Amino acid sequence: MGRLATMTRQATENAAGAAPVPAAARLSATEAAARIAAGDLTAAALAEACIARTLARDDAVRAWTVFEPGMVRRQAAERDAGTPLGPLHGVPVGIKDILFTRDLPTTYNSPHFQSHHPNVDAAVVALLRAAGAIVFGKNDTVEFAVNGRRARTRNPHDPGRTPGGSSSGSAAAVADFQVPLSIGTQTGGSVIRPASYCGVYAMKPTWNAVSAEGMKTCAPSIDTIGWYARSAEDIALLCDVFSITGDGRSAPASLDGASIAICRSPVWDKAEPEAREALERCTLLLEAAGARVETLDLPDRFDGLTDAHKVIMQCEMRSTFLPEYAALGDALYAELVATMRNEAGYTSADLRGAYELAAECRARFDAVAEGYDAVVTPSTAGIAPKGLDDTGAATFNRIWTLLHTPCVNVPGLSGPGGMPVGLTVTGPRFSDRRVVAVAEMLGACIRHRSTASPDHQQPE
Amino acid sequence: MGRLATMTRQATENAAGAAPVPAAARLSATEAAARIAAGDLTAAALAEACIARTLARDDAVRAWTVFEPGMVRRQAAERDAGTPLGPLHGVPVGIKDILFTRDLPTTYNSPHFQSHHPNVDAAVVALLRAAGAIVFGKNDTVEFAVNGRRARTRNPHDPGRTPGGSSSGSAAAVADFQVPLSIGTQTGGSVIRPASYCGVYAMKPTWNAVSAEGMKTCAPSIDTIGWYARSAEDIALLCDVFSITGDGRSAPASLDGASIAICRSPVWDKAEPEAREALERCTLLLEAAGARVETLDLPDRFDGLTDAHKVIMQCEMRSTFLPEYAALGDALYAELVATMRNEAGYTSADLRGAYELAAECRARFDAVAEGYDAVVTPSTAGIAPKGLDDTGAATFNRIWTLLHTPCVNVPGLSGPGGMPVGLTVTGPRFSDRRVVAVAEMLGACIRHRSTASPDHQQPE
Repeated sequence: MGRLATMTRQATENAAGAAPVPAAARLSATEAAARIAAGDLTAAALAEACIARTLARDDAVRAWTVFEPGMVRRQAAERDAGTPLGPLHGVPVGIKDILFTRDLPTTYNSPHFQSHHPNVDAAVVALLRAAGAIVFGKNDTVEFAVNGRRARTRNPHDPGRTPGGSSSGSAAAVADFQVPLSIGTQTGGSVIRPASYCGVYAMKPTWNAVSAEGMKTCAPSIDTIGWYARSAEDIALLCDVFSITGDGRSAPASLDGASIAICRSPVWDKAEPEAREALERCTLLLEAAGARVETLDLPDRFDGLTDAHKVIMQCEMRSTFLPEYAALGDALYAELVATMRNEAGYTSADLRGAYELAAECRARFDAVAEGYDAVVTPSTAGIAPKGLDDTGAATFNRIWTLLHTPCVNVPGLSGPGGMPVGLTVTGPRFSDRRVVAVAEMLGACIRHRSTASPDHQQPE
Repeated sequence: MGRLATMTRQATENAAGAAPVPAAARLSATEAAARIAAGDLTAAALAEACIARTLARDDAVRAWTVFEPGMVRRQAAERDAGTPLGPLHGVPVGIKDILFTRDLPTTYNSPHFQSHHPNVDAAVVALLRAAGAIVFGKNDTVEFAVNGRRARTRNPHDPGRTPGGSSSGSAAAVADFQVPLSIGTQTGGSVIRPASYCGVYAMKPTWNAVSAEGMKTCAPSIDTIGWYARSAEDIALLCDVFSITGDGRSAPASLDGASIAICRSPVWDKAEPEAREALERCTLLLEAAGARVETLDLPDRFDGLTDAHKVIMQCEMRSTFLPEYAALGDALYAELVATMRNEAGYTSADLRGAYELAAECRARFDAVAEGYDAVVTPSTAGIAPKGLDDTGAATFNRIWTLLHTPCVNVPGLSGPGGMPVGLTVTGPRFSDRRVVAVAEMLGACIRHRSTASPDHQQPE
């Protein structure tokens, strides 16, 4: 435990840069929307705070591929002049640049799509607008949210480190107080990993909880829309906006008496000291809070899920990227060309086997996870790697993406240099609301521990 | 067998209306592309033939929501002036109006989307253009390809009957010689059913064989892009264009010695006399051709697939139509509103159970179907119903859509009044090329029989 500390909110703000954060930009979406609804804050003032923060920090963080303050101001003025549209009225949201936005380009951070501008909104964007949100800009991403060109985005906690990928800009923008909310996507570990590295909450809901229409399709059987926030309450707010109702089983009233499984997962051998310590710390905190904590070892069959994920993703991409390959051929980045040529030699039998293992393990995981209020597992192997080329590995995320389970990253712990390391709360498919509720309790527990025990606030 | 006859090509043309079909409009896509490549036909001349046929027949058939001859002519002129792009150079293709086309509106045949015009191409449209095809127009569809407003399209064989749905216009336009090829989509029975009713070939490939990006998403785990043609050769040509390579196991060289399973399917009790007779006729023809024909009875577990399909489709639609529901609410058609409100009361346990049954049966069907060269099953319960309100039932298609198996409708048989009734050739997932090859043999066998035995050319 020598390397791990408890990250405080103040620490996050300090790490995020020397410039002071405008007061309105510190607000959560829930707080901001409440103040706007009460007439205590205008959408314009909130937008200006976020614009000011973004302009002050953009050279350092580079979270956006497309950002037009004038368009943000126009939307804010419309919100201030109009009747309340919904629970996000006037709240700025960042949109990953593989999701269509009718009023901004969608570049996929690809050199071949710099002037690509679909004139329709992705489903998730349409839902945000219907709830009153303001589209703040397009968040930088790894090319096509897969591989190839990296986002230019830096980790707000250390400009020499990656924010993770592929939803690099979405995570960094929220962590850096540039926007209270942002949207990402996950096919491997593209939502949860950046959240872990940047120290924010994030949710990858059950597969298809939010329609992926208008997202650059990668692997449709696992592509998942997700979102970032600085509080679990805001994560839940977006569940409301997206009509995610859960499975009807209620969350425990508190951690006292709750039944929590700690799952090291089949890739535990890849865990670095920070992830190991984070899971141990979490176990102690949960036990101290009165939870019944058990270790959940997944059956051997689950060991094959990482490979199955790779097979499914690579094989499905051969259909979904065929139009780009037909148009661009070898001008696409080398790894994508290799995928299109099936250089790995995957057969249809490999793909059927992967689908069958996934289906079997989905059912088995749901059944075992129903025995707990939630399951906690590492979000990443450790803290963000150095440099921007290596966006870290999806090792600890692939199996949950393939299992279609709801995952929430809980921030609050940090390793060497104050770099965040997250924990994932998960559960059976469709237990989204329970997972969010337990994530909120766990996050509060970590924060409370930091308040109660000052010796844990700094690296030991 | 008293009701069933063998449909001849001439019969189709006669049934399609009194106006003579221009010679070039009779060509298959394969024939037309070969002539264009050889310099024996221009794209412009082919386009004019299709335009003339369409204009002559549009009042009767009404296969299009959007049709602009000028745009077709411009594309044809570009093809004639340009270097050969691919195997569809200069060939007109109809596009179902739930698929994005950058140069034509995409109305979903919904009163709420009449001016909807996404400026990007669906993946399938981009692939067609890359192969040199000409986007001929948008084919009428049941609203959102689900329910609500019906296509205005009439069956080319009988204007008093439905062409089937939801890909109504796509099937009718090809059957009526207005275009050699068209694209449809299937979530229930929307590709195969209209093909059966209109007497044309059609393919619903293995799920995700063609990317569904740019299709109005309905139920992403089963939404499938499909296509129509007047020959099995043309069906195979589109497999080439879409890089569908199959599972590596070759098709039998001929029906002589081929192993074919006849599967009445779990919904056999819904089969009308025409479907029963078609399957019996098929059995006799296959046996006469030297095939080893066996009856395949699916296990009892497969009986649940029809309900499972319904649960999955309804539940997934609650995510995919949420943007439309957020924008339009009760202005949407009543059945869709009921789906969005979950008036059927489906639970997440229902949905998990449906997913698990589907996964189990996919594996089981693949395993048993590997024992044959192909499986033959009814395409529809019978011939097209009367009127345009009832587009027929997807009863015989739902389970194959849910099983993700490749399906090809084979035309050639007809019932009372010369109305077509089709047979489906299917097989394990990824056996697409083998299924097409067997469909071609079966189609030839039906045609040959009609030539050899004049007594089968007319209703007996």
